[in-house]
Amino acid sequence: MSYRNLRVLVTGGLGFIGSNLAIRLVELGARVTIVDPQMAGCGGNPHNIAPICDRVELISRDAGDADQFAGAIREAKVIFNLAGEISHIHSMEFPERDMLINAVSQLRFLQACARHNPGVRVVYAGTRQVYGKPDYLPMDERHPLRPVDFNGVHKYAANMYHDMLSRMGLLDGIVLRLTNVYGPRMSLSIPCQGFLSTFLRLVLTGKGLVVFGDGKQLRDPMFVDDAVKAFLLAGLAPTPPQRTINAGGPRALSLHQIARICARLAGDLPVELRPFPEDRAMIDIGSYFTDTSLLAETFGWKPSVHFEDGMMTTLAYYRAEMSHYLDPSNPQPCCGLPEHKGIPHRLTYAAL
Amino acid sequence: MSYRNLRVLVTGGLGFIGSNLAIRLVELGARVTIVDPQMAGCGGNPHNIAPICDRVELISRDAGDADQFAGAIREAKVIFNLAGEISHIHSMEFPERDMLINAVSQLRFLQACARHNPGVRVVYAGTRQVYGKPDYLPMDERHPLRPVDFNGVHKYAANMYHDMLSRMGLLDGIVLRLTNVYGPRMSLSIPCQGFLSTFLRLVLTGKGLVVFGDGKQLRDPMFVDDAVKAFLLAGLAPTPPQRTINAGGPRALSLHQIARICARLAGDLPVELRPFPEDRAMIDIGSYFTDTSLLAETFGWKPSVHFEDGMMTTLAYYRAEMSHYLDPSNPQPCCGLPEHKGIPHRLTYAAL
Repeated sequence: MSYRNLRVLVTGGLGFIGSNLAIRLVELGARVTIVDPQMAGCGGNPHNIAPICDRVELISRDAGDADQFAGAIREAKVIFNLAGEISHIHSMEFPERDMLINAVSQLRFLQACARHNPGVRVVYAGTRQVYGKPDYLPMDERHPLRPVDFNGVHKYAANMYHDMLSRMGLLDGIVLRLTNVYGPRMSLSIPCQGFLSTFLRLVLTGKGLVVFGDGKQLRDPMFVDDAVKAFLLAGLAPTPPQRTINAGGPRALSLHQIARICARLAGDLPVELRPFPEDRAMIDIGSYFTDTSLLAETFGWKPSVHFEDGMMTTLAYYRAEMSHYLDPSNPQPCCGLPEHKGIPHRLTYAAL
Repeated sequence: MSYRNLRVLVTGGLGFIGSNLAIRLVELGARVTIVDPQMAGCGGNPHNIAPICDRVELISRDAGDADQFAGAIREAKVIFNLAGEISHIHSMEFPERDMLINAVSQLRFLQACARHNPGVRVVYAGTRQVYGKPDYLPMDERHPLRPVDFNGVHKYAANMYHDMLSRMGLLDGIVLRLTNVYGPRMSLSIPCQGFLSTFLRLVLTGKGLVVFGDGKQLRDPMFVDDAVKAFLLAGLAPTPPQRTINAGGPRALSLHQIARICARLAGDLPVELRPFPEDRAMIDIGSYFTDTSLLAETFGWKPSVHFEDGMMTTLAYYRAEMSHYLDPSNPQPCCGLPEHKGIPHRLTYAAL
C-alpha cells in the first residue's frame, strides 16, 4: 500500500508539522486536502504550503466544523489530525480557549469522522507534555500521566477520545506522542511555542540565547522530517496492538548544548545561563528524553537526522524565507490572542 | 481537628452523595454551605436535605459560576466537590453537555478556589469509570486509564485539574475514585444513573429485574455512609503522598446476586437474565471490584456496611419518602434533558 493517488486529509495542515507532512504527501502522489482555519496563535501560515499550494485543496475551517466538510472526511482514506494549540503558557492564560481548540474541536471532529467515515485511520499529534515530570527516563508509554498545564490536560482528553472511539470500533486511531520537534515552517513570531522556536527567533535576529536553570536539563529534539516519517508509517500500517506511541529524537542533549549549537551555527552568538522565572519554574519538567522502541518495533521507524544537521537545514530555510516568519520592522513576537484584561472569554452551551 | 464549627462547602450538595455528606457534616457541627443549581438530569433534589434545610446555606448556582460565590469559597476550610453528571449514556448522547458540566465547570470552579482560597483542601468525587475494562482485579490506582465513554474522559479531565493545580501548590486536592455507590437519596426518576438506581426504581414499583449478560459480572457496591466516611476522613487528613485514591465496597458480588438480593428484600420479585442490548455491550466493562488498601492505609478507612444491610436501609428510606423520588402517576423515568432531535447543543467561545 502506498500514498500514490490516495486521498488524505490533514487537519492543521498550514501549521508546522502539518505543512511538512502535506508537502511530503504531495511528493508521494497523495491527493491532499488541508483543513486549517489559521486560528490566531496556532501557527497556521499559508506560506508553509507555498511549494504545493496549487496541488492541494484548502478548507479554511476549524476541525470542529467538520459537518461543513463531511464530503472530504467521507472520501479520505487516511486522516492526519494535527490541528491544535501547543502553547503551555497560552493555556494557563486562556484555559477555556485551549479547551475549545484541543478538546471541544477534537470531540466534534472525531464524532464527524466516526459518523461519515466509520473505522477510518486517524493519526493524531499527541504530546509528551501529558506525562509531566518524569519518574524515570527514557520515557516510555507506561509512565503515569501527570500533565503540568491545561494544555497537557486537554491534549490528553483528545488522546482519550481517539482511544475510546477506536475501542468502540468507530475509528482506527493512532496517537503519536511527540517530543520537541523543530525544523523549517515552525512559527517564529508566536511566543510560547517552545524553546526551539524561541532560540531560532533570537539567533535569526542576531541575538544571543538565555537558558533557564543550570542548562543541564536534557531534551531529545526531533527533526520534522523524522516526525513526518512516523506519521506516514502510522497512516498505512496495520492496526497496532498499542495505539498510543511515543516519538522522539535520536539523542538526548542538554539545553545548554542545544543552545550552543544553535548559537554557533547562526554565527557564534553568546549563550547565557539564568535562573528560572517563577512562572516557568512551576511548569518545568526537568530532563526528558524518549524511549522510541515501541515506535521502532511497531512501524520499523528510526530517527535519522542529528541535531546539528537538522538545525543547519532549519537555519538555511529561515534565512531564505525570513520575511514570511519574522517581521524585521516588528521583532517583538505577537500571538494575536484576544486581549483579556477584564474580559472573560468563556465557553457557553446553547442550542444553536 | 474536627468538623465542629468548621465552615465547609459542598458542591452538588443536593445530589445523592453530596446530600448524605452534608447531613452528616451538620450532625458533626460543621457550618455547611451547599452549591447546587439543580441542573436537569444531574440528580439534585431539595428534598434530599429536608432534615437540615434550616441549618445550611444553599447557593443555587452552578459550581462553574464560582466568582458569584467567592465569599463562600474564601471562608471554606474544606471544600467537598461533588458537582457533576454521572450518566454514561447521557454523555454519549450529549457529549458537549457532559463536557460543560464535568470539565468546563470544574475548570472554572477550581481556578476560583485557587484564586480566592489558595491551598484549600478540595475533595473531589472521581469515578472508577476512568479505568475502563480492567486488566486485573482488584482495581488499584496504578491501573492504566481507558475510559469507555465521554463521561469517563471528562471526569478524568477534572481529576487532572485537581492533580495539576495541587502539584502547582494552588490547591490541596484529593480525588476519591468511587465504585457504584447506593443508598438513600439516589435519584430514581432519572434514567441512566447506573444499574442500582434502575434496580431500585423497578423493585419499588413492584417490578421484577432484568440483568444483562450471564449475570456473573462482579461489582462491589458501596453503601453511601461508607462513601461519606471516606470524604469526611479525606477532608481533614494531612496531605497524602498520593492524591488519587480508590474507594469501593466491602465485597464483590455478581450482578445476579445483587439483583436477587434487591428483588427478595423488596418482596420476592422475579429476576431474569437477558442478552446485552448493543449500545450497552459497547460500554460494558465486565467485572469490577476495588482494591481499597490505599484508602485504608492513607486514612484508616474501612467499609462497614454489607450489601444486604445497606439495601434494607435504602428500601426503607424510599418506602417512607417515595413521593419525593418517584411519581406514581408517571412511572416512566424522565431525565429532563433538552430535546436534541436536529438541534445541536454546542459549546461556543465568546467574550461575555
